[in-house]
Amino acid sequence: MSKKFNVAIMGATGVVGREMLKIVEQRNFPVAKMKFLASERSQGIRMSYKGEDIPVETLTHNSFKGVDIVLSSPGATVSKEFSPSAVKAGAVVVDNSSAFRMDPNVPLVVPEVNPHAVKQHKGIIANPNCSTIQMVVALKPLHDAAKIKRIVVSTYQSVSGAGKKGLKALEQETRSIIEGLDLEQFLLPKQIAFNLVPQIDVFMENYYTKEEMKMVNETRKIMEVPDMRITATCVRVPVFVAHSESINIETEKKLTREDAIRLLEKAPGVKVVDDVSKGEYPMPIKAAGKDETFVGRIREDESIANGLNFWVVSDNLRKGAALNAVQIAELL
Amino acid sequence: MSKKFNVAIMGATGVVGREMLKIVEQRNFPVAKMKFLASERSQGIRMSYKGEDIPVETLTHNSFKGVDIVLSSPGATVSKEFSPSAVKAGAVVVDNSSAFRMDPNVPLVVPEVNPHAVKQHKGIIANPNCSTIQMVVALKPLHDAAKIKRIVVSTYQSVSGAGKKGLKALEQETRSIIEGLDLEQFLLPKQIAFNLVPQIDVFMENYYTKEEMKMVNETRKIMEVPDMRITATCVRVPVFVAHSESINIETEKKLTREDAIRLLEKAPGVKVVDDVSKGEYPMPIKAAGKDETFVGRIREDESIANGLNFWVVSDNLRKGAALNAVQIAELL
Repeated sequence: MSKKFNVAIMGATGVVGREMLKIVEQRNFPVAKMKFLASERSQGIRMSYKGEDIPVETLTHNSFKGVDIVLSSPGATVSKEFSPSAVKAGAVVVDNSSAFRMDPNVPLVVPEVNPHAVKQHKGIIANPNCSTIQMVVALKPLHDAAKIKRIVVSTYQSVSGAGKKGLKALEQETRSIIEGLDLEQFLLPKQIAFNLVPQIDVFMENYYTKEEMKMVNETRKIMEVPDMRITATCVRVPVFVAHSESINIETEKKLTREDAIRLLEKAPGVKVVDDVSKGEYPMPIKAAGKDETFVGRIREDESIANGLNFWVVSDNLRKGAALNAVQIAELL
Repeated sequence: MSKKFNVAIMGATGVVGREMLKIVEQRNFPVAKMKFLASERSQGIRMSYKGEDIPVETLTHNSFKGVDIVLSSPGATVSKEFSPSAVKAGAVVVDNSSAFRMDPNVPLVVPEVNPHAVKQHKGIIANPNCSTIQMVVALKPLHDAAKIKRIVVSTYQSVSGAGKKGLKALEQETRSIIEGLDLEQFLLPKQIAFNLVPQIDVFMENYYTKEEMKMVNETRKIMEVPDMRITATCVRVPVFVAHSESINIETEKKLTREDAIRLLEKAPGVKVVDDVSKGEYPMPIKAAGKDETFVGRIREDESIANGLNFWVVSDNLRKGAALNAVQIAELL
């Protein structure tokens, strides 16, 4: 790429916004001019891009003049309101919110899985939910080889999935419990320190949470199997960064443990960590800060003819959000 | 019960031993004389039973004279060595270790599930693994009504499952991280604070852990379905007390969410906590210290015709170990 782009990060001061900035720098994305956009609350904040000190601008409908690419990670409401203005101004928006993911006119892209979908964009490309991204990165090579018939997934999701508030909640609650202090104010509806919360996002009419249904619907769209059989249980755990998933699949063709390892080892974006003799398997503290989707605990499910169990861990702020968005921008 | 029994707690100073004592007291188990047995390391320790101060005795093969019931919770090796001496001395041993669980001559009992099996004992009755007990308590009413064909379970197990060392490891590691100190010595092979460890117990030849295979084999034995199709993934989480399980089942007969709730609400030992409108579901911090097996997040699995997902939480030291053992003793 010799062409350079004017890039705006929308929601720049959030956990994912800051990670987007870091990744744009680390990957030497060809930036001509960098712009930081955030809500009024962030007024007065300055952020640095490659040593250049840049004030955060308050997001308005006129913020996008001359911008080529918007890396967007505000909430879904803000994204829904402002992304069309960015498109109107001629920018392409890579949006990390849930605002447009299921819109049939918006491609939902994981570069390792469906890069071709990018071409169909009409100004907006959606970045999937963090828990979906790492799952499909691991599933894709197995699906291509043996056709997945059904997926049963249970997640172990870190508090950074709830943004700065989630990180602060775990830190504050843990400190108050360990130091025997009274915590006057809880930042999240339920205690997360030394606890598990089997609810992420709101409940839907079918008693699943929105997060669980995102995993079902987004996976179907990205893998282009509209009737893929998937069921998910999503749980928040007291971990700062990196989501983990216990995944059980049934395939049409038999895959042995060795088949699966061979397929995953050559899959883009995947790193197999699976040496039981050395006690090696993926863990959140090892995956945090890394780009790869780590897969381990790979074993045949002896309860069905063609079944596999495995354990997938990835940094939800990087591959689960910011990195995937920048990778989409690189495809453009 | 008007008869009173001489009771010995073997492994009295351990996490489960102490919990056994607490439960014997709370449930007014008809004790004539209480005896505490532990290894030499515990010499000099005194423990109190209903206000009576009793020295802990060093466990020998001659410790069991006059003892009617042994509540046993040392390691499997110690139990294997000393339980036969207890039986020879005329005692019945309720053993919480894994030493005898799969022995065809030893009943493996969860009083809510297979109380009749107690009658077949030849001196030793085994108490199942903590993660198995809470699962079968929840599965039994569903199996009776609709016949379970397959179980896929992922666990979220607290550090108290690893005994005092596990509790101390989580506390020390958390403190050192929160206070920014260097931790010189890790008590467990892997960091557990703010992390997840997808390994409990050692690895077997089939790449499953021993804990995972316990859930498979013990469930088959307790539910008396030798070919029950089960697959398990067991994960240690940074929670002090109470294990949680994300369970997916396929049944022969269709069960709706309402059917399952109705069946579970009248099942012994089960408490349904499932009101999504109020954000109510089982959580470890609510289950710790309680006797019940809490079930929630009950919903139909739309990926198969007759499937259910649910979330089961129980105090692994109480129902998962000490309480279940005392309940077995009460059956005698």
